[in-house]
Amino acid sequence: MSTDSQSLHTVTQPQVYETKLRVRYAETDQMGVVYHSNFIVWFEVGRVEMMRQLGFTYNEMEQQEGQHLAVADVRCRYKAPARYDELLLIRTHLMNVRDSLVHFGYEILRDEDGTLLAEGESVHLVLDRDFKRTRLSPRYLPAFLKAAGRR
Amino acid sequence: MSTDSQSLHTVTQPQVYETKLRVRYAETDQMGVVYHSNFIVWFEVGRVEMMRQLGFTYNEMEQQEGQHLAVADVRCRYKAPARYDELLLIRTHLMNVRDSLVHFGYEILRDEDGTLLAEGESVHLVLDRDFKRTRLSPRYLPAFLKAAGRR
Amino acid sequence: MSTDSQSLHTVTQPQVYETKLRVRYAETDQMGVVYHSNFIVWFEVGRVEMMRQLGFTYNEMEQQEGQHLAVADVRCRYKAPARYDELLLIRTHLMNVRDSLVHFGYEILRDEDGTLLAEGESVHLVLDRDFKRTRLSPRYLPAFLKAAGRR
Amino acid sequence: MSTDSQSLHTVTQPQVYETKLRVRYAETDQMGVVYHSNFIVWFEVGRVEMMRQLGFTYNEMEQQEGQHLAVADVRCRYKAPARYDELLLIRTHLMNVRDSLVHFGYEILRDEDGTLLAEGESVHLVLDRDFKRTRLSPRYLPAFLKAAGRR
Repeated sequence: MSTDSQSLHTVTQPQVYETKLRVRYAETDQMGVVYHSNFIVWFEVGRVEMMRQLGFTYNEMEQQEGQHLAVADVRCRYKAPARYDELLLIRTHLMNVRDSLVHFGYEILRDEDGTLLAEGESVHLVLDRDFKRTRLSPRYLPAFLKAAGRR
Repeated sequence: MSTDSQSLHTVTQPQVYETKLRVRYAETDQMGVVYHSNFIVWFEVGRVEMMRQLGFTYNEMEQQEGQHLAVADVRCRYKAPARYDELLLIRTHLMNVRDSLVHFGYEILRDEDGTLLAEGESVHLVLDRDFKRTRLSPRYLPAFLKAAGRR
Repeated sequence: MSTDSQSLHTVTQPQVYETKLRVRYAETDQMGVVYHSNFIVWFEVGRVEMMRQLGFTYNEMEQQEGQHLAVADVRCRYKAPARYDELLLIRTHLMNVRDSLVHFGYEILRDEDGTLLAEGESVHLVLDRDFKRTRLSPRYLPAFLKAAGRR
Repeated sequence: MSTDSQSLHTVTQPQVYETKLRVRYAETDQMGVVYHSNFIVWFEVGRVEMMRQLGFTYNEMEQQEGQHLAVADVRCRYKAPARYDELLLIRTHLMNVRDSLVHFGYEILRDEDGTLLAEGESVHLVLDRDFKRTRLSPRYLPAFLKAAGRR
């Protein structure tokens, strides 16, 4: 997975956007911890709440602008188990933004003591209504660039 | 939930359509058994495979005829836990069919010994492409009526 | 499903306990609305948050007292679709409590305009560490009785 | 993610183990395709069926030997969307096996025409009953080594 987000003209740091959620019983498995694919769903919660904090919603991006962020690559490294009823902190940042690609990074921590439970990333292609590759609408690109720490 | 499927002109019994599936680890929870909402997903597997055995697919019903079977009511009674890696037998039958309503019944059994794990039912409204209530297409109604044990 | 919670000695109304959640993309399906089994998971969120508001957690009930509330029966009636990114209000109340049985009722509403999307109920058996039927611990019974509108 | 499975003493190729599954409606999302986290669940189906073909089950590995394969790292690259009701072919192979680590690789293809939909990998740590790192039981190690193309 490319991690070339630290290009020369990056002068500010990427912002980190936070949200919290509580582990549901449905998300546990018989090992007594959270089943691993749920972290991938929580990444989605992280990036959606990031966009809300950036001033728009992924919902309007899809419904009004017809722009989809289709997942091309996702990765998660598990550090410690998440357990039922724990309050989790999802920290999301932008690793890279290009015309037709958005690369998010995530950390998932136990809120109570700040233990890092998992970290990951996802690469998304920008698609139009016909699911063809397209460029990020000028309506959203500046906000993404700013979040990525670029002007 | 109405169970008035035994109307006077019913002369044959409803057919039972069977399919099998194996419990996934993802479907268990920290009690060490299957989380209960997964049975509702398995009901879906049961009715979809019933339709395939009736000679059509729910996929073509949606894509070609624009007919959706929207769930209006679902119920499940749990008799015994389902466990990881067990092979399950899903038995589906039609409890009632009317112009714009289809009522399925289900039994979920452990395949190995025939133990009944759960039984349930779901009522579906027939919707058109605009999600307005409509009548079952004549392409499907006869098969549903036959499955329900009616001519 | 029995709804005989209005017994003669009920002099107060059951309390309603509220919590909110936002619909995740993962919870939608290709009809463009929430897949119906997710409401059953949201019922779980509702009753867990009810218990937290009653002064204890389901987690400690399981971990410390070894008491499980195993689902014996669940039902959901769907009134209107839930959609992606909507904020939902889950309203939970106790329909009945007996020594070894707890019966919850639920309403799920769109928070923005109060539209009722679904209503349902679930019956739970109280099980001990060995998954044998047992009585609700005196540590929890009074809170449940009070929530049910009984002394 | 390390891919150093082609060590010098590898003289045979890793075997590929196949299983099929059909996409459930519950697995789709409002883009009309499968929600991406479900591929991670299908990877689990792939490795579980691989083990069954190797002559044991993951269930007995957990229940009898008290050995868990805890996910430490998972990655999925998406090539083409999976759609409702499609029959999928899951191809699983072992990328690496060491005393206390198992590294699986996966390909998910549309069965009808062999189109590659996604490929991925997962790294698992071997844990004992107390969730402490341990070595693969001699009961399973030879089968894993053979599957990895080593003696």
